[in-house]
Amino acid sequence: MIRPLLVMRLLTMPCLWMGLVQLVFGELSFMFFKDNVASNFTLPASITLGISLIILIGFKKYPLPSVTNREAMLFATLTWVAVGMLGAIPIVTIAHVSFTDGVFESISGLTTTGATVLSGLDSMPKTFLMYRQFLQWMGGLGVVIFVVAILPMLNIGGMRLLKAETPGPIKDDKLSPRVANTTHYLWLVYVTITALCALCYYLAGMSVFDAIGHSFSTVSTGGFSTHDASMGYFHSNLMLWICNVFMVLGATNFALHYRVYLANSIKLYWKDEEMRSFLIIIFVISVILATYLYHNGNEHSFWQSLTDSFFHIISFITSTGFAATDLSKWPVVTAVILIFVGYIGGCAGSTAGGNKVIRNIIALKSVGLEIKRLVHPNGVFTMKFQRRTISGEVRHAVMAFMCLAALTTIIFTILLMFTGLSFMAALSATAACLNVLGPGFAELGNNFAPLSDVATWLMSAAMILGRLEYFTVLVLFFPVLWRQ
Amino acid sequence: MIRPLLVMRLLTMPCLWMGLVQLVFGELSFMFFKDNVASNFTLPASITLGISLIILIGFKKYPLPSVTNREAMLFATLTWVAVGMLGAIPIVTIAHVSFTDGVFESISGLTTTGATVLSGLDSMPKTFLMYRQFLQWMGGLGVVIFVVAILPMLNIGGMRLLKAETPGPIKDDKLSPRVANTTHYLWLVYVTITALCALCYYLAGMSVFDAIGHSFSTVSTGGFSTHDASMGYFHSNLMLWICNVFMVLGATNFALHYRVYLANSIKLYWKDEEMRSFLIIIFVISVILATYLYHNGNEHSFWQSLTDSFFHIISFITSTGFAATDLSKWPVVTAVILIFVGYIGGCAGSTAGGNKVIRNIIALKSVGLEIKRLVHPNGVFTMKFQRRTISGEVRHAVMAFMCLAALTTIIFTILLMFTGLSFMAALSATAACLNVLGPGFAELGNNFAPLSDVATWLMSAAMILGRLEYFTVLVLFFPVLWRQ
Ligand SMILES: [K+]
Ligand SMILES: [K+]
Repeated sequence: MIRPLLVMRLLTMPCLWMGLVQLVFGELSFMFFKDNVASNFTLPASITLGISLIILIGFKKYPLPSVTNREAMLFATLTWVAVGMLGAIPIVTIAHVSFTDGVFESISGLTTTGATVLSGLDSMPKTFLMYRQFLQWMGGLGVVIFVVAILPMLNIGGMRLLKAETPGPIKDDKLSPRVANTTHYLWLVYVTITALCALCYYLAGMSVFDAIGHSFSTVSTGGFSTHDASMGYFHSNLMLWICNVFMVLGATNFALHYRVYLANSIKLYWKDEEMRSFLIIIFVISVILATYLYHNGNEHSFWQSLTDSFFHIISFITSTGFAATDLSKWPVVTAVILIFVGYIGGCAGSTAGGNKVIRNIIALKSVGLEIKRLVHPNGVFTMKFQRRTISGEVRHAVMAFMCLAALTTIIFTILLMFTGLSFMAALSATAACLNVLGPGFAELGNNFAPLSDVATWLMSAAMILGRLEYFTVLVLFFPVLWRQ
Repeated sequence: MIRPLLVMRLLTMPCLWMGLVQLVFGELSFMFFKDNVASNFTLPASITLGISLIILIGFKKYPLPSVTNREAMLFATLTWVAVGMLGAIPIVTIAHVSFTDGVFESISGLTTTGATVLSGLDSMPKTFLMYRQFLQWMGGLGVVIFVVAILPMLNIGGMRLLKAETPGPIKDDKLSPRVANTTHYLWLVYVTITALCALCYYLAGMSVFDAIGHSFSTVSTGGFSTHDASMGYFHSNLMLWICNVFMVLGATNFALHYRVYLANSIKLYWKDEEMRSFLIIIFVISVILATYLYHNGNEHSFWQSLTDSFFHIISFITSTGFAATDLSKWPVVTAVILIFVGYIGGCAGSTAGGNKVIRNIIALKSVGLEIKRLVHPNGVFTMKFQRRTISGEVRHAVMAFMCLAALTTIIFTILLMFTGLSFMAALSATAACLNVLGPGFAELGNNFAPLSDVATWLMSAAMILGRLEYFTVLVLFFPVLWRQ
């Protein structure tokens, strides 16, 4: 059963939050950056806050009962849609783009995609630039709460797997107490890692502004930058390796971070099967790419080739999407590798997008199991992950997720091509949005401005679809959700 | 346990058969076509026959015990490899191509792929042209026996599904009696449909030679032609629609054909869930494509647009790969649609390649089931296909197959790009070979001659991999098969 009034009341929370954020940025512009865009933030903020408070006060008498699974899914999707719209208003008025483009940019921020329709960033008001960076950081935190606290309860795409991994009370099947319980430690971890990241960037030579801004978009694996040249602006290998570390930390299961903190043992990272596989995958693919680039690209030394390969593989596998060089000058095969690496994704329970390492492992183990079964048709085989048996139900959900990701990619690619894009542009944009990765190739190599309005809306939908792991959104279109 | 001598003895059978075929074609050249290529056939045929007979007589004393699952898989792969090599010899000597290209052409024939490295077909010796067509027809028959009699027993990619559908004794888990039992009715159906096809082509205006040749490559969904312009040579919409009918019949489960024949009721086709879905998919996609082409292509009338769309969608979905027009002049999006349509494939138990309609249906139903489960986490849901419940085991096997097909596509595409091909050429060639479809795009739009030697061998491997439904070949590379 869906209670529309309850969902509406819940929705006022993220809207209130967005209003507060915009209010703060208005003050920042007025008091600190003095870049004359204060009213672009305070005006929509006041309206949002006003309406939200009226709704909140109007429904004050209603107690907030436990939220059902169905309501949680509707709430999650509507949150990203509503906050995406509200977040777009300052973008539209400051960067002078259409509402379509503004919503795209805002959703790209909040979903931590990092695809942009803007160019000439370096000369834009600082308040505005920091606002974009902050959208990603806030979106990243929202996603972490969603994937750590809500996904495992809903078992979306087989993520019940992670339930036992998550600290806090797990026997209660109601969502609300659980969310409240896990949120506070996620905050702690997320803020700590971001602060460390900003500090490292600053020590490596970034300005305070850039260090904070880029820490926001690194830990959230968002990929927005305050410069058109992205991380390439700084011409610093040291910064790329700092970025590598924090992109990987952002793409690590935040529940694992918390366990490492509780146990005070960094070894737990390596003991975790998903994390271990993640690091091995990064290492192997990066070394292969480095070797190829050294022999076929424009790299001067193997060390530079290695740095560039690790940076771009990590940037794409963690779905961050930073670039440090003009990727259009690399051989086309590297673009194809980077696009498909994005489908591997980071660890579950992180800010990263993509199909997630854990699902890839389970899919591969599934293939291995079938091979065993061919040789021993009457044998009984079970799948183990992290020394626990994986149920058939989880396997089904994981494999359905993988198929859905592939099917969605094909459909969106063809739809984009109908709007006039080349195959490479359409495929790369689809992959970039579904995996909340960011960068496109071919015509979209610089930014997403060449997209038609229809294509822009398609990609906005794709970002929300991918961010909420397909099923959360898809279920809204099936009558089974709306039936009593 | 694998008994190498037993597998070797079994292997003499297809080799003997290939020797006999080449001997007949030698006689055909000498007696009938008089095109001076008799010795190119009789010489290798004599050697093959001699060696095979010696082995056969040497092992005469050994009784032929029942074949195990493992031996069946090894035998299937080695058959295609060995017969592919033997079949290449006349191609190498007559068309003056390298051994690499000859093996590619021969395997392309036998796997019913239809990709070619040759051009200037129209001026080649008739015996040679008919030999190529016959390779496809023979390969198609071999595949039908493999997919109807062997796949369901091995449950490769979940094909135990089809077990109950197959006439003949099914309780016996030993392969040999079953294969013998099903082969005779498959022959009957296959020959009948081919004869009908040739007759229709002849009545529509083809020469006897072309009618027979094209019936061989139509019913086997092979796609070889005796003309460089493929079906476009004839400039006849009537022939395209005849071709449509027989491509669909070739891509129909041959066990279903036999049941239609036994029950003498054509309605059974529509009552079969896979067949019904197949026809609906063809209809829907063709109409969409026709509408798009009419508005964005060079089509003069909607009727011609419909004819072209139906023909090419059927040609690609059944993995036949005939072309009736220069596809490079169509918008690129149509090429992408045709490539991905090839992954849908025909019905299981047919000569068609691709992932097969039945697996696509099960994958989609799997996604649907997960959506229901999200809304009703404690509900018990079962999947139905053709009114029977699908076991979790079959679902696992099907989904593993789908993931394997996607993964293999990505790996082969990247490997081909390493050899220097463009993305579109690499992806289309990979899809064309894995789905035993045939036509490539971009640089490979005319034929596969531009492939490097390494790339040619990769594609030869891909054709066997796809033809034998991945698992049959893949299992050979895992130690589990070779252990006692
Ligand atoms: K991103
Ligand atoms: K074919």
